[in-house]
Amino acid sequence: MKFNIAFIGFGVVGQSFTRILLKKRDFLRKKYDLDYDVVAISDIVKGSVLDERGLNLSSILKLVERGRSIELYEGGRKGLSSLETIQESNANVIVEVTWTNLRTGEPGLTHVRKALELGKHVITTNKGPIAVAYRELKRLADSRYVFLRFEGTVLSGTPALNLGLEALAGSYVKSIRGIVNGTTNYILTEMEKGRSYAEALREAQRLGYAEADPTMDVEGWDAVGKMVILANVLMDGDLKVDDVERIGITGITSFDLERALKEGCRIKLIAKAWREDDAIKAKVSPEKVPLTDFLAYVDGTLNALTFSTNCIGDITIIGRGAGGVEAAHALLSDLIAVNRHLSFMEGRR
Amino acid sequence: MKFNIAFIGFGVVGQSFTRILLKKRDFLRKKYDLDYDVVAISDIVKGSVLDERGLNLSSILKLVERGRSIELYEGGRKGLSSLETIQESNANVIVEVTWTNLRTGEPGLTHVRKALELGKHVITTNKGPIAVAYRELKRLADSRYVFLRFEGTVLSGTPALNLGLEALAGSYVKSIRGIVNGTTNYILTEMEKGRSYAEALREAQRLGYAEADPTMDVEGWDAVGKMVILANVLMDGDLKVDDVERIGITGITSFDLERALKEGCRIKLIAKAWREDDAIKAKVSPEKVPLTDFLAYVDGTLNALTFSTNCIGDITIIGRGAGGVEAAHALLSDLIAVNRHLSFMEGRR
Repeated sequence: MKFNIAFIGFGVVGQSFTRILLKKRDFLRKKYDLDYDVVAISDIVKGSVLDERGLNLSSILKLVERGRSIELYEGGRKGLSSLETIQESNANVIVEVTWTNLRTGEPGLTHVRKALELGKHVITTNKGPIAVAYRELKRLADSRYVFLRFEGTVLSGTPALNLGLEALAGSYVKSIRGIVNGTTNYILTEMEKGRSYAEALREAQRLGYAEADPTMDVEGWDAVGKMVILANVLMDGDLKVDDVERIGITGITSFDLERALKEGCRIKLIAKAWREDDAIKAKVSPEKVPLTDFLAYVDGTLNALTFSTNCIGDITIIGRGAGGVEAAHALLSDLIAVNRHLSFMEGRR
Repeated sequence: MKFNIAFIGFGVVGQSFTRILLKKRDFLRKKYDLDYDVVAISDIVKGSVLDERGLNLSSILKLVERGRSIELYEGGRKGLSSLETIQESNANVIVEVTWTNLRTGEPGLTHVRKALELGKHVITTNKGPIAVAYRELKRLADSRYVFLRFEGTVLSGTPALNLGLEALAGSYVKSIRGIVNGTTNYILTEMEKGRSYAEALREAQRLGYAEADPTMDVEGWDAVGKMVILANVLMDGDLKVDDVERIGITGITSFDLERALKEGCRIKLIAKAWREDDAIKAKVSPEKVPLTDFLAYVDGTLNALTFSTNCIGDITIIGRGAGGVEAAHALLSDLIAVNRHLSFMEGRR
C-alpha cells in the first residue's frame, strides 16, 4: 500500500521520523509492501511546502540541518498553514508532531479533528489532543473508518498502549501502575549514587533528558498526561489532567533515599490509575518500592507499566520511556499497523 | 461480526475458552460487536458433534464436567473426525487445541493446514504446528487472506508474541532472552527457600504447575519449543527443536543456588535466541542472573521475555507464563484481533 504523508510540525520527532522513513524505505517495501511519499510539511517556524507528487526528503533535511527555512526548497507550493496543508494536500496520513498543551490540547487538537473529519488517518506523538479529547476523536475516527494511532504518547517507543489496546483486548484492566517518566527516574537513580538533586538535574539537562525548564517532568505533569491517556484509553475513563493528584520529586532529598534504602526500599515516582466506586482515579507521587519488587530495579531512563487484569493477572512492560528517535519509531509502528489493516482488507476484496 | 467456531480438541484449554465465551458474550457484543456460534466440537476422547445452527454450550459443558461423551448431546450430527469437522462444518474459525508434538507437529499440523487451505481462520495454543511449520502455514494463511493466530503458544495469556509481531513491527529484533517456563521457575524459586528439588517438584505437581511426567518442563523441552516459535516468527529463523542447545534444571542443587546467591546472583532457566554469522541460534540452560537485574526478581510461575531491538532498545514483558484459563484468554485475544481486522474492513467497504 502507498501512503501520502503530511507532517504537521517538523521538530526533533518529525525529523527523526523522516530519517527513519528514508533509511527504511527498502525494508518497508520488502517486508510490508508499504511505500510512501511525503507530500507536505508544515511547521510554524521552519516553513511550509507542499508537492502532491512527493517531496525530496533529503533536500528538506539538508535545509533543516543548516537551520534554513524549508520554503527554500525548489518547487512545490509554499506558505500553507497547518490547517490548509491538512485540507488542501492529497495526504491520506497526517503525522501530527507539534507541541503539547495538556490543558487545551491545542494546536494539535484542531489538526487531528480536521484530519479525521476529512477521512485522513492520523498518527501522532502529541499527548495534548489525546489527553484532552480521546473519546471525541476516537468516535470521529470510527465514524470515518480511519485510524487514529498514538503509540508514542506514552513511554515513547516502548509499545505500552498497543499492548493494552490490542494484546490485552478481552481482559478488563483493573488498574495501571508504573514508572512513566524517564527524566525523574534518571534523577532519582543518580541521587541514590550520592548526587544532590541539583547536580542530578544538571546532568540530566546536559544529557538531553531534561528540558531547560524541567517543570513538566520534575513536577509530575508529564506523568499525569500519560496517566490520563492510559486511564481514558484502556480503562474507559474520562479524566482531565486536573483530576489527577500530583506530587513531583522536587521535595525528595538524598537523605530520604538513604533512609528508604535502609528500610529495604527505593523511592520511585509512581504513576497509577485505579477504579474506585465506579469512577477512575489517578495519582502521580513518589512512593517506596520494596527491593523484592522488580520495579525497584527499573533504573535510569528505563520506564515500566503494569496492567492488572481480571483474567490474566499482572502484565508488565519495561523499556526506554523517552527519546526523539524512539518516539519516531512509535510513529513507524503506527504507520505499519495502519498499512497492515488496510493491506489485509485490500487483499480480501 | 459473527463467527462460526469449531473446536478441534476439547481439553482444559478448549473447555476454559468455552466458559469464557459464554461468560463474556454480552461484553463481546457490546464492546467489539463480536458474536459467535460454536457449531462443532471434535475431540478424539470426548466425542464429536456438529450443529450448523450452533450448539448449546452449557449442555455440552455439563456433559463434559460429568465425564460423559459429548455425543450424548441432543441433536446435531455425531461421530465426525477432526478433519471431517474442519471440512464439512460451516465454521469459519477453527480453534485448534489438541495435544503438542514438537517434532512432528501432529495432529495439529494437519488440522491447521487443512483449515487454512479451506480459507478458515485458525486460532491455536498448540505449539506443535507453529514450531514445526510456521513458514509454510504463514504463507498458506496469507495466500488465502485468512488469519493464523497463536498468542497462547508462548507465555500463555501474556501477550509476548503479539507484542513482538505488531507492536515491535518496524524494529529489527537482534535477540530474545528470558524465562519462559513457569514450572521450572517455580521449582527454582522454591529450592531457594530451602526445599530440595524433589520436594519442590512434588509441590509443583500438587499445585498443577507440573505434569505427572515433568520431563517436558524440567528438561527444557517446553522452553525450547517456545524459543523455536519466537525465533522463527520474530527473527525470521528456520529452527527446529533439535537445533536448540538444551540443558534442563535437574542437575541444579540447593547448594548451587546458595553459592550463586553469595556471588550476588540467582539461577534461572534462561532461554535465548540470537543472531550469529547470518544464522539464528537458540539455547535453553540455567544461568546466573545478577541481583541488580530485574530478571532476578521474576519469581515463581511468573515469566519474562526481553526483545533487544536495533531501534528502541530492550523491551521486556513480564507476566504469568502458564495456565489453562490464561491460555484460553490468549485465544480470546486472538479472536478479538481477527474480529477487529475484519470489522474494520467491512466498515470501509
